Amino acid sequence: MKTTPYAKPIDHLIEALTRLPGIGKKTASRLAFYILRSGLSEAQELAQAILEVKEKIHLCSLCFNLTDEDPCRVCQDNHRNKEILCVVEGPNDLMAIENTVEFKGRYHVLHGTLSPLDGIGPEDIKIRELMGRLRKERISEVILATNPTVEGGATMLYLTELIKPLGIKVTRIAYGIPMGGEIEYADVMTLSKALEGRREI
Amino acid sequence: MKTTPYAKPIDHLIEALTRLPGIGKKTASRLAFYILRSGLSEAQELAQAILEVKEKIHLCSLCFNLTDEDPCRVCQDNHRNKEILCVVEGPNDLMAIENTVEFKGRYHVLHGTLSPLDGIGPEDIKIRELMGRLRKERISEVILATNPTVEGGATMLYLTELIKPLGIKVTRIAYGIPMGGEIEYADVMTLSKALEGRREI
Repeated sequence: MKTTPYAKPIDHLIEALTRLPGIGKKTASRLAFYILRSGLSEAQELAQAILEVKEKIHLCSLCFNLTDEDPCRVCQDNHRNKEILCVVEGPNDLMAIENTVEFKGRYHVLHGTLSPLDGIGPEDIKIRELMGRLRKERISEVILATNPTVEGGATMLYLTELIKPLGIKVTRIAYGIPMGGEIEYADVMTLSKALEGRREI
Repeated sequence: MKTTPYAKPIDHLIEALTRLPGIGKKTASRLAFYILRSGLSEAQELAQAILEVKEKIHLCSLCFNLTDEDPCRVCQDNHRNKEILCVVEGPNDLMAIENTVEFKGRYHVLHGTLSPLDGIGPEDIKIRELMGRLRKERISEVILATNPTVEGGATMLYLTELIKPLGIKVTRIAYGIPMGGEIEYADVMTLSKALEGRREI
Protein backbone atom coordinates (compact mmCIF):
# COMPACT_ATOMS: atom_id res chain seq x y z
CA MET A 1 0.00 0.00 0.00
CA LYS A 2 1.39 3.33 -1.06
CA THR A 3 1.29 5.92 1.72
CA THR A 4 0.79 9.42 0.37
CA PRO A 5 2.46 11.95 2.64
CA TYR A 6 -0.52 14.11 3.63
CA ALA A 7 -4.11 13.08 4.07
CA LYS A 8 -6.18 14.10 1.01
CA PRO A 9 -8.09 16.99 2.62
CA ILE A 10 -4.77 18.57 3.63
CA ASP A 11 -3.45 18.15 0.08
CA HIS A 12 -6.61 19.78 -1.27
CA LEU A 13 -6.25 22.76 1.01
CA ILE A 14 -2.55 23.22 0.19
CA GLU A 15 -3.40 23.00 -3.50
CA ALA A 16 -6.19 25.57 -3.21
CA LEU A 17 -3.98 27.94 -1.22
CA THR A 18 -1.12 27.57 -3.72
CA ARG A 19 -3.38 29.10 -6.38
CA LEU A 20 -3.39 32.41 -4.50
CA PRO A 21 -0.86 34.95 -5.80
CA GLY A 22 2.52 34.94 -4.06
CA ILE A 23 1.69 31.79 -2.08
CA GLY A 24 4.16 29.00 -2.82
CA LYS A 25 4.03 25.38 -1.73
CA LYS A 26 5.87 26.07 1.53
CA THR A 27 3.71 29.01 2.60
CA ALA A 28 0.58 27.10 1.61
CA SER A 29 1.62 24.20 3.86
CA ARG A 30 2.29 26.57 6.71
CA LEU A 31 -1.11 28.21 6.30
CA ALA A 32 -2.85 24.84 5.97
CA PHE A 33 -1.28 23.59 9.19
CA TYR A 34 -2.22 26.80 10.92
CA ILE A 35 -5.83 26.34 9.81
CA LEU A 36 -5.68 22.75 11.03
CA ARG A 37 -4.53 23.84 14.45
CA SER A 38 -6.85 26.83 14.75
CA GLY A 39 -10.32 26.69 16.22
CA LEU A 40 -13.24 25.48 14.15
CA SER A 41 -14.99 28.84 14.34
CA GLU A 42 -11.94 30.70 13.05
CA ALA A 43 -11.72 28.39 10.03
CA GLN A 44 -15.44 28.72 9.42
CA GLU A 45 -15.19 32.49 9.56
CA LEU A 46 -12.46 32.46 6.93
CA ALA A 47 -14.40 30.14 4.65
CA GLN A 48 -17.55 32.20 5.17
CA ALA A 49 -15.69 35.44 4.42
CA ILE A 50 -14.43 33.98 1.14
CA LEU A 51 -17.90 32.90 0.09
CA GLU A 52 -19.40 36.18 1.22
CA VAL A 53 -17.24 38.39 -0.98
CA LYS A 54 -18.13 36.27 -4.00
CA GLU A 55 -21.80 36.43 -3.13
CA LYS A 56 -22.21 40.01 -2.00
CA ILE A 57 -19.57 42.06 -3.77
CA HIS A 58 -20.29 43.37 -7.24
CA LEU A 59 -19.54 46.52 -9.21
CA CYS A 60 -21.28 49.81 -8.48
CA SER A 61 -23.49 50.56 -11.47
CA LEU A 62 -22.34 54.20 -11.44
CA CYS A 63 -18.60 54.25 -10.74
CA PHE A 64 -17.72 50.51 -11.00
CA ASN A 65 -16.14 50.45 -7.57
CA LEU A 66 -16.43 47.12 -5.72
CA THR A 67 -19.42 47.34 -3.43
CA ASP A 68 -22.07 45.43 -1.52
CA GLU A 69 -24.69 48.14 -2.12
CA ASP A 70 -25.73 49.81 -5.34
CA PRO A 71 -24.86 52.60 -5.82
CA CYS A 72 -21.75 52.23 -3.66
CA ARG A 73 -21.24 54.23 -0.48
CA VAL A 74 -19.02 56.78 -2.21
CA CYS A 75 -21.60 57.45 -4.92
CA GLN A 76 -24.36 57.62 -2.29
CA ASP A 77 -22.46 60.19 -0.20
CA ASN A 78 -24.25 63.53 -0.64
CA HIS A 79 -21.42 65.47 0.97
CA ARG A 80 -19.22 64.86 -2.00
CA ASN A 81 -18.64 67.27 -4.85
CA LYS A 82 -20.48 65.69 -7.74
CA GLU A 83 -18.80 67.90 -10.31
CA ILE A 84 -15.33 66.42 -9.90
CA LEU A 85 -14.64 62.93 -11.13
CA CYS A 86 -11.40 61.09 -10.44
CA VAL A 87 -10.65 58.34 -12.95
CA VAL A 88 -8.58 55.43 -11.60
CA GLU A 89 -7.39 52.12 -12.99
CA GLY A 90 -8.66 49.88 -10.22
CA PRO A 91 -10.53 49.69 -6.91
CA ASN A 92 -7.21 49.65 -5.03
CA ASP A 93 -6.27 53.01 -6.51
CA LEU A 94 -9.63 54.38 -5.40
CA MET A 95 -8.90 53.10 -1.89
CA ALA A 96 -5.45 54.66 -1.86
CA ILE A 97 -6.90 58.04 -2.78
CA GLU A 98 -9.74 57.67 -0.25
CA ASN A 99 -7.14 57.02 2.44
CA THR A 100 -5.62 60.44 1.91
CA VAL A 101 -8.98 61.95 3.02
CA GLU A 102 -8.09 64.81 0.64
CA PHE A 103 -10.32 64.11 -2.28
CA LYS A 104 -13.98 64.98 -1.87
CA GLY A 105 -15.25 64.29 -5.36
CA ARG A 106 -16.39 61.01 -6.85
CA TYR A 107 -14.69 58.28 -8.87
CA HIS A 108 -14.82 56.26 -12.00
CA VAL A 109 -13.02 52.93 -11.99
CA LEU A 110 -11.74 51.81 -15.38
CA HIS A 111 -10.83 48.25 -14.36
CA GLY A 112 -7.68 48.23 -16.41
CA THR A 113 -5.67 50.32 -18.83
CA LEU A 114 -5.39 50.38 -22.58
CA SER A 115 -2.73 47.87 -23.55
CA PRO A 116 -2.71 47.02 -27.25
CA LEU A 117 0.09 44.48 -26.77
CA ASP A 118 -2.13 42.52 -24.36
CA GLY A 119 -5.14 43.00 -26.63
CA ILE A 120 -6.87 45.38 -24.23
CA GLY A 121 -8.66 48.10 -26.17
CA PRO A 122 -11.13 50.87 -25.22
CA GLU A 123 -14.04 48.40 -25.28
CA ASP A 124 -12.41 46.22 -22.62
CA ILE A 125 -12.33 48.84 -19.87
CA LYS A 126 -15.08 51.13 -18.57
CA ILE A 127 -14.46 53.99 -21.03
CA ARG A 128 -17.85 53.92 -22.74
CA GLU A 129 -19.44 54.05 -19.30
CA LEU A 130 -17.24 57.02 -18.36
CA MET A 131 -18.27 58.91 -21.47
CA GLY A 132 -21.90 58.14 -20.70
CA ARG A 133 -21.52 59.66 -17.24
CA LEU A 134 -19.81 62.74 -18.63
CA ARG A 135 -22.72 63.33 -20.97
CA LYS A 136 -25.40 62.67 -18.34
CA GLU A 137 -23.92 64.08 -15.12
CA ARG A 138 -22.95 67.72 -14.64
CA ILE A 139 -19.19 67.31 -14.36
CA SER A 140 -16.75 70.22 -14.54
CA GLU A 141 -13.39 68.48 -13.99
CA VAL A 142 -12.02 65.02 -14.67
CA ILE A 143 -8.86 64.16 -12.76
CA LEU A 144 -6.96 61.37 -14.48
CA ALA A 145 -5.21 59.32 -11.80
CA THR A 146 -3.83 56.47 -13.89
CA ASN A 147 -0.46 55.06 -12.94
CA PRO A 148 2.69 56.66 -14.39
CA THR A 149 3.38 53.64 -16.61
CA VAL A 150 3.36 53.27 -20.37
CA GLU A 151 -0.18 51.84 -20.28
CA GLY A 152 -1.39 54.40 -17.75
CA GLY A 153 0.05 57.18 -19.89
CA ALA A 154 -1.54 55.83 -23.07
CA THR A 155 -4.90 55.57 -21.32
CA MET A 156 -4.54 59.14 -20.04
CA LEU A 157 -3.82 60.48 -23.52
CA TYR A 158 -6.69 58.55 -25.03
CA LEU A 159 -9.14 59.80 -22.42
CA THR A 160 -7.89 63.38 -22.68
CA GLU A 161 -8.63 63.40 -26.40
CA LEU A 162 -12.11 62.00 -25.82
CA ILE A 163 -13.05 64.28 -22.93
CA LYS A 164 -11.62 67.67 -23.91
CA PRO A 165 -14.02 68.18 -26.85
CA LEU A 166 -16.87 67.98 -24.31
CA GLY A 167 -15.60 71.22 -22.79
CA ILE A 168 -14.69 69.54 -19.50
CA LYS A 169 -11.47 70.46 -17.71
CA VAL A 170 -9.06 67.49 -17.71
CA THR A 171 -6.23 67.34 -15.17
CA ARG A 172 -3.82 64.67 -14.07
CA ILE A 173 -2.23 64.04 -10.67
CA ALA A 174 1.31 65.36 -10.17
CA TYR A 175 4.35 63.21 -10.80
CA GLY A 176 7.53 63.89 -8.88
CA ILE A 177 9.78 62.95 -6.02
CA PRO A 178 7.83 60.93 -3.44
CA MET A 179 7.70 62.47 0.03
CA GLY A 180 10.57 61.12 2.12
CA GLY A 181 12.36 60.11 -1.07
CA GLU A 182 15.87 61.26 -1.87
CA ILE A 183 16.74 63.16 -5.01
CA GLU A 184 20.07 61.37 -5.12
CA TYR A 185 18.34 58.05 -5.54
CA ALA A 186 15.38 59.09 -7.66
CA ASP A 187 15.25 57.46 -11.08
CA VAL A 188 15.85 59.62 -14.13
CA MET A 189 12.22 59.57 -15.29
CA THR A 190 10.88 60.65 -11.91
CA LEU A 191 13.43 63.41 -11.61
CA SER A 192 12.66 64.67 -15.12
CA LYS A 193 8.96 64.73 -14.27
CA ALA A 194 9.70 66.51 -11.00
CA LEU A 195 11.70 69.21 -12.84
CA GLU A 196 9.13 69.53 -15.56
CA GLY A 197 6.37 69.91 -12.99
CA ARG A 198 8.18 72.53 -10.90
CA ARG A 199 6.05 75.23 -9.31
CA GLU A 200 6.83 78.76 -8.28
CA ILE A 201 7.16 79.23 -4.51
CA MET B 1 -22.69 59.85 5.81
CA LYS B 2 -19.32 58.32 6.56
CA THR B 3 -17.97 56.24 3.70
CA THR B 4 -15.90 53.32 4.91
CA PRO B 5 -13.17 52.52 2.42
CA TYR B 6 -14.03 48.92 1.55
CA ALA B 7 -17.41 47.28 1.46
CA LYS B 8 -17.98 45.24 4.64
CA PRO B 9 -17.59 41.76 3.11
CA ILE B 10 -14.19 42.78 1.74
CA ASP B 11 -13.17 44.08 5.16
CA HIS B 12 -14.28 40.81 6.74
CA LEU B 13 -12.22 38.77 4.33
CA ILE B 14 -9.13 40.93 4.79
CA GLU B 15 -9.54 40.64 8.55
CA ALA B 16 -9.94 36.86 8.41
CA LEU B 17 -6.88 36.51 6.16
CA THR B 18 -4.79 38.77 8.41
CA ARG B 19 -5.20 36.22 11.21
CA LEU B 20 -3.16 33.70 9.20
CA PRO B 21 0.51 33.54 10.17
CA GLY B 22 2.85 35.74 8.14
CA ILE B 23 -0.04 37.46 6.34
CA GLY B 24 -0.02 41.21 6.95
CA LYS B 25 -2.65 43.76 6.00
CA LYS B 26 -1.12 44.39 2.57
CA THR B 27 -0.84 40.72 1.61
CA ALA B 28 -4.34 40.09 2.96
CA SER B 29 -5.73 42.86 0.72
CA ARG B 30 -3.88 41.46 -2.27
CA LEU B 31 -5.27 37.97 -1.60
CA ALA B 32 -8.78 39.33 -0.99
CA PHE B 33 -8.76 41.20 -4.29
CA TYR B 34 -7.44 38.12 -6.03
CA ILE B 35 -10.31 36.10 -4.59
CA LEU B 36 -12.73 38.83 -5.70
CA ARG B 37 -11.45 38.67 -9.25
CA SER B 38 -11.19 34.89 -9.43
CA GLY B 39 -13.97 32.61 -10.59
CA LEU B 40 -16.77 31.64 -8.23
CA SER B 41 -15.82 27.97 -8.39
CA GLU B 42 -12.21 28.67 -7.43
CA ALA B 43 -13.32 30.62 -4.36
CA GLN B 44 -15.80 27.91 -3.44
CA GLU B 45 -13.10 25.28 -3.74
CA LEU B 46 -10.86 27.20 -1.36
CA ALA B 47 -13.65 27.71 1.18
CA GLN B 48 -14.63 24.07 0.87
CA ALA B 49 -11.03 22.91 1.34
CA ILE B 50 -10.79 24.96 4.55
CA LEU B 51 -14.00 23.48 5.94
CA GLU B 52 -13.01 20.00 4.84
CA VAL B 53 -9.74 19.88 6.76
CA LYS B 54 -11.55 20.97 9.91
CA GLU B 55 -14.22 18.38 9.36
CA LYS B 56 -12.22 15.38 8.17
CA ILE B 57 -8.75 15.72 9.64
CA HIS B 58 -8.11 14.41 13.14
CA LEU B 59 -5.27 12.70 14.94
CA CYS B 60 -4.41 9.07 14.31
CA SER B 61 -5.30 7.19 17.48
CA LEU B 62 -2.02 5.26 17.29
CA CYS B 63 0.72 7.69 16.24
CA PHE B 64 -1.12 11.07 16.48
CA ASN B 65 -0.27 11.99 12.91
CA LEU B 66 -2.87 14.17 11.16
CA THR B 67 -5.13 11.88 9.16
CA ASP B 68 -8.52 11.44 7.55
CA GLU B 69 -8.56 7.72 8.33
CA ASP B 70 -7.94 5.94 11.60
CA PRO B 71 -5.40 4.50 11.95
CA CYS B 72 -3.53 6.73 9.51
CA ARG B 73 -2.08 5.44 6.26
CA VAL B 74 1.42 5.13 7.73
CA CYS B 75 0.18 3.03 10.64
CA GLN B 76 -1.95 0.92 8.29
CA ASP B 77 0.99 0.18 6.00
CA ASN B 78 1.96 -3.45 6.52
CA HIS B 79 5.21 -3.10 4.61
CA ARG B 80 6.68 -1.02 7.40
CA ASN B 81 8.94 -2.28 10.14
CA LYS B 82 6.74 -2.19 13.21
CA GLU B 83 9.68 -2.58 15.56
CA ILE B 84 11.22 0.82 14.86
CA LEU B 85 9.48 3.94 16.09
CA CYS B 86 10.59 7.43 15.12
CA VAL B 87 9.49 10.10 17.61
CA VAL B 88 8.97 13.57 16.11
CA GLU B 89 7.75 16.90 17.45
CA GLY B 90 5.06 17.57 14.85
CA PRO B 91 3.30 16.29 11.73
CA ASN B 92 5.54 18.44 9.55
CA ASP B 93 8.62 16.65 10.86
CA LEU B 94 6.99 13.32 10.05
CA MET B 95 6.37 14.60 6.53
CA ALA B 96 9.96 15.74 6.13
CA ILE B 97 11.24 12.31 7.13
CA GLU B 98 8.71 10.56 4.88
CA ASN B 99 9.95 12.66 1.98
CA THR B 100 13.43 11.15 2.31
CA VAL B 101 11.87 7.73 1.50
CA GLU B 102 14.64 6.32 3.72
CA PHE B 103 12.75 5.49 6.87
CA LYS B 104 10.60 2.41 6.78
CA GLY B 105 9.48 2.24 10.38
CA ARG B 106 6.56 3.98 12.04
CA TYR B 107 6.15 7.23 13.93
CA HIS B 108 4.95 8.80 17.10
CA VAL B 109 4.05 12.50 16.97
CA LEU B 110 4.50 14.34 20.26
CA HIS B 111 2.71 17.54 19.21
CA GLY B 112 5.20 19.78 20.94
CA THR B 113 8.27 19.70 23.13
CA LEU B 114 8.82 20.02 26.82
CA SER B 115 9.18 23.71 27.58
CA PRO B 116 8.91 24.55 31.27
CA LEU B 117 9.23 28.27 30.55
CA ASP B 118 6.09 28.13 28.43
CA GLY B 119 4.38 25.89 30.94
CA ILE B 120 4.52 22.82 28.68
CA GLY B 121 5.18 19.70 30.73
CA PRO B 122 5.11 15.96 30.00
CA GLU B 123 1.32 15.85 30.38
CA ASP B 124 0.85 18.42 27.59
CA ILE B 125 2.45 16.38 24.82
CA LYS B 126 1.86 12.79 23.74
CA ILE B 127 4.41 11.20 26.09
CA ARG B 128 2.01 9.07 28.11
CA GLU B 129 0.65 7.74 24.83
CA LEU B 130 4.17 6.96 23.64
CA MET B 131 4.95 5.03 26.80
CA GLY B 132 1.69 3.15 26.38
CA ARG B 133 2.72 2.06 22.90
CA LEU B 134 6.16 0.99 24.06
CA ARG B 135 4.58 -1.25 26.65
CA LYS B 136 1.97 -2.69 24.29
CA GLU B 137 3.73 -2.93 20.93
CA ARG B 138 6.86 -4.99 20.29
CA ILE B 139 9.32 -2.17 19.66
CA SER B 140 13.07 -2.70 19.55
CA GLU B 141 14.34 0.79 18.72
CA VAL B 142 13.10 4.30 19.33
CA ILE B 143 14.70 6.98 17.14
CA LEU B 144 14.38 10.41 18.72
CA ALA B 145 14.08 12.97 15.91
CA THR B 146 13.36 16.11 17.91
CA ASN B 147 14.82 19.38 16.68
CA PRO B 148 18.35 20.35 17.79
CA THR B 149 17.01 23.17 19.99
CA VAL B 150 17.02 23.61 23.75
CA GLU B 151 13.46 22.30 24.01
CA GLY B 152 14.09 19.48 21.55
CA GLY B 153 17.17 18.49 23.52
CA ALA B 154 15.36 18.56 26.86
CA THR B 155 12.56 16.43 25.44
CA MET B 156 15.11 13.97 24.09
CA LEU B 157 16.83 13.62 27.44
CA TYR B 158 13.54 13.21 29.26
CA LEU B 159 12.36 10.51 26.86
CA THR B 160 15.69 8.71 26.95
CA GLU B 161 15.46 8.38 30.72
CA LEU B 162 11.92 7.08 30.47
CA ILE B 163 12.51 4.61 27.66
CA LYS B 164 15.92 3.10 28.44
CA PRO B 165 14.72 1.27 31.57
CA LEU B 166 12.28 -0.62 29.32
CA GLY B 167 15.28 -2.28 27.63
CA ILE B 168 14.54 -0.58 24.32
CA LYS B 169 17.38 0.82 22.20
CA VAL B 170 17.18 4.61 22.05
CA THR B 171 18.95 6.50 19.25
CA ARG B 172 18.87 10.05 17.97
CA ILE B 173 19.33 11.39 14.45
CA ALA B 174 22.80 12.72 13.60
CA TYR B 175 23.64 16.40 13.98
CA GLY B 176 26.30 17.90 11.76
CA ILE B 177 27.13 19.96 8.72
CA PRO B 178 24.15 20.04 6.35
CA MET B 179 24.83 18.61 2.89
CA GLY B 180 25.91 21.40 0.58
CA GLY B 181 26.81 23.49 3.60
CA GLU B 182 30.23 25.02 4.07
CA ILE B 183 32.36 24.34 7.10
CA GLU B 184 33.67 27.90 6.92
CA TYR B 185 30.18 29.25 7.51
CA ALA B 186 28.84 26.63 9.89
CA ASP B 187 27.92 27.95 13.33
CA VAL B 188 30.04 26.89 16.28
CA MET B 189 27.40 24.59 17.75
CA THR B 190 26.86 22.72 14.50
CA LEU B 191 30.58 22.34 13.96
CA SER B 192 31.11 21.06 17.50
CA LYS B 193 28.33 18.51 16.99
CA ALA B 194 29.84 17.50 13.66
CA LEU B 195 33.24 16.90 15.27
CA GLU B 196 31.74 15.11 18.21
CA GLY B 197 29.76 12.84 15.91
CA ARG B 198 32.70 12.00 13.63
CA ARG B 199 32.80 8.47 12.25
CA GLU B 200 35.64 6.29 11.10
CA ILE B 201 35.89 5.94 7.33
